[in-house]
Parts: sequence; C-alpha cells; structure tokens
Amino acid sequence: MSHGNNPTASVLIIGNEILSGQVQDLNLQYLAKRLHDLGIHLRETRVVADVEGDIVHVVNRLRARYDYVFTTGGIGPTHDDITAHAIAKAFSLPIERNPEAVSRIFKKYPQRGPKDSRFKMCEIPKSATLIDNPISTAPGFQVENVFVLAGIPAIAQAMFEEIVPRLKEGMPRFARSVFCAIIEGKIASDLARIQESFEDIEIGSYPYWLKEKDKGVRIVLKGLDEARVHAATKHVIKMFEQQACSPKIMDE
Amino acid sequence: MSHGNNPTASVLIIGNEILSGQVQDLNLQYLAKRLHDLGIHLRETRVVADVEGDIVHVVNRLRARYDYVFTTGGIGPTHDDITAHAIAKAFSLPIERNPEAVSRIFKKYPQRGPKDSRFKMCEIPKSATLIDNPISTAPGFQVENVFVLAGIPAIAQAMFEEIVPRLKEGMPRFARSVFCAIIEGKIASDLARIQESFEDIEIGSYPYWLKEKDKGVRIVLKGLDEARVHAATKHVIKMFEQQACSPKIMDE
Repeated sequence: MSHGNNPTASVLIIGNEILSGQVQDLNLQYLAKRLHDLGIHLRETRVVADVEGDIVHVVNRLRARYDYVFTTGGIGPTHDDITAHAIAKAFSLPIERNPEAVSRIFKKYPQRGPKDSRFKMCEIPKSATLIDNPISTAPGFQVENVFVLAGIPAIAQAMFEEIVPRLKEGMPRFARSVFCAIIEGKIASDLARIQESFEDIEIGSYPYWLKEKDKGVRIVLKGLDEARVHAATKHVIKMFEQQACSPKIMDE
Repeated sequence: MSHGNNPTASVLIIGNEILSGQVQDLNLQYLAKRLHDLGIHLRETRVVADVEGDIVHVVNRLRARYDYVFTTGGIGPTHDDITAHAIAKAFSLPIERNPEAVSRIFKKYPQRGPKDSRFKMCEIPKSATLIDNPISTAPGFQVENVFVLAGIPAIAQAMFEEIVPRLKEGMPRFARSVFCAIIEGKIASDLARIQESFEDIEIGSYPYWLKEKDKGVRIVLKGLDEARVHAATKHVIKMFEQQACSPKIMDE
C-alpha cells in the first residue's frame, strides 16, 4: 500500500453516545488527517461503549498490534467516565491521585471540599505522562504507546497537538485529488489499468451522489514519490478527457 | 446496561478514505440512531481499510459475536471495491454473476459491451439475498446475518430502510435528555447517586464545550420502563435546580 516503513496507528473512540447515534463523532476525521500529514499510517479504528471489560480488551489488542493507539472520550468527572481505570487495568498499573493533575485542575477553579468530584479527573495510572489540556485544564495522559485524549472535539484536538512532538513521524505521502462529474462505471476499467502500471501509488475512487443531477467521482492518488504521483495523475486526467469530462485537480 | 434481551449489532465501515480523513463518515450516526429506534443494541463499530485480509478477519469476528453486522462501502465498480469478494471469502462461498443484479443494473443504462465495468457490481456471493438500491440500481446483499450496504450516505440509508423488515426488533428504550449550562464537575457526585438508585436506567453525561461562554452538559437517561426513566429524569432536574441552573428537557 506504499506506506513504506511508516509508523502505524489506531484510534479507539470510547462512548455510548456515539454508538447510540446521539453524538456525531468528529474526532476521527481530525486525527486521521493529522496522522496522514505526519506520515503515520492509521490502520484501524474502533468504537466501543463505556464498558470496562470491552475497553481493556480492545486497548490490549490495539497496543500490541500498532505503534500508537489514540483513545478519545471517557475522562471526565462523572460515573460513566471509566477510561482511566480501564487503561490502568489494561496495563496492570495501580491508579493514583496525580499531584500535578490536582495542581492543574484546581488552579483556575479552587477546590470545593475533599469530595470535589473533579478529584476523579486526577486519578491517573501510576507512571503515566500527562498530556496538557490548554482549554479546560483536566489533563489527558500517555502510558507507553497509548495516548488518552478527551472526547470533546476542541479539547481532543488541542491535546493531540500537544503530543505531536512525542510521535515518531514517517515519510509524508504526496496526494492529489481529481474530481469529475461522471459515473464510476464509465472509468473503472481504465482506472484499473492505471493502477496496474502504478503499483507504488494508491489510487482510490470515491463516488459521490448528492442528487441525480449532482453526482460524480473523486480519484485520490497517493504515494511516497511526488513525481510518480504526478505521472499517475496525468493518466487519470487523460482518462477523464477521453470521456469528454473536464476534471478539476486539487492538491491535498 | 438495561438492554434486556434485545438483539445485538455491529457496524463495519470499509474504506481508506475514512482512515485517511478525506471523507467524514456519516453512515454510523444514521445506522446507530435507526438501530436504537428498532431496539437493536449496537455494541461495536470498526473502520478498516480496503484490504481483503483485514475485512475477512473482522467480518468473521463480528458475525460470530453479534446478531447482525452491517457493512458500508466498497461495493462499486472500481479496482478498490473489494467488499463482495471479501465477504464471499469470509463465508467460503463462490462469487458469481448474479442475474437479478445484471437485470437491475442494466435496465436504466444499457450495457456498453461485454467488458462493461458495471458487471463487477453484479459479482455477488452465491446464495446471497439482494438488497434493493432505489437510487442508483446496483444492489447491496445479505449473507446470513451480514448486510452489505453502499458507502454513499444516501444509498446506504435507502438500503438500510429496505432491510428493516428482515430484522428482528427489540424492545424500544425510552430516552430523555436534560441540558444545562453547567460544568460536569459540579453535578458529578449527585449524578452518581441518582445512577445508584436507578440501576435499571443508563445515565450518560455528555459535556459540550464550544467556547468558554458556551459550555454545558447533556444528561441522557435511557431504559425499557418509561415510568422509571421519567422518575430518574425528575431527580436530574431537581439536581440542576439545586445548582441554580435551569435545565431544558427534551424527549429523544
């Protein structure tokens, strides 16, 4: 798939609200784009409910299989926020009140007594490295190759940017998109032939169908060698022109 | 989790475009909401790339574990559409040109010779039951408990509605949402106590943080017994009022 020896990753979205359709996930696309920019190959994504056994099982599968695991969701102060405990269990680590998290969380909004429920957000697996939360203070954390981010998109994104310096980047892949208002069926055979002559380029064909009069296809070409991506793109443009369809070309 | 003996399901999203962030998935939320309406418990979702081995492996895991599996994506005419072959392999079925699919696909737009690439969309695992595509004709299909839908949202949704009569519905769960402009930390302990007295009700707390001045929390209460959901909702409303926050209540 022409990803070379790039690091691999998976995303684990934790939350009943995604599986019941109450909330539209917006974190996956952000993380996917940023990982792509960094040359890190996102191989798999899972969405699981707020069920400890399920989270432990999946985290252990993913962290053994990929270089990086990014989780989102379940690190707030309420009873249904169980991610920190599940991660501790997955790594067989004790969970403890993290003094640095206490200091960050209660700096802006002082403590409301010893039972302040925000202490729950300070319970973090022993030996974890904190991830700064520049928006609402309560930190995420990293244990080995697992990065635990918040579920709220603005916070998840800010936390991801905080950890970028900790990630080993891969070779970036060059990408170009070519759009044309044509149905896929008309170009599929020609496109397959182009793919055969460019084995090092990943060529994806993504039809869109908004309405009968607004449909078409977007061809995305990706590879580690920019010149090869450009050469394959030329063939795709010619293919569309032979079908009397004028393509639009975009850099990604 | 108060789902009773409701049927279980998983969704498998197939496509490099989702894992590279080029396309925002919109199918999961639609399927999740509709399954919730039908009393079918969506337990897990996965996103995998257009890699045959990965699809075969995941389909076999999911179909063994859940009552229903719904896949989206990868059933078009281009070289990167490999879902039908992967499903055939997962079930050890031969793949063959389905005469009914041929008739539907070429009815509106006649055949362009024996190598018309739309024949690829007629290659369907033997013994599969077709799923009608009222939008662009090329059908999805069902093999045992696995339903193979298109990736384009309008088509995936239409195909899902076609198969609803084939699904065993569960008991619907009643749901109410209560919104309040308050931070979660202030209500977490009280909410945990409400959850303890209503073990049969699933109470979820979903903070939102759009900006510093526009933040709050949405409490979602769900259960099979409507009166119990209402009783728990009353406690949540009272909890917010005690914090001098006036809640908004919505039926789901």
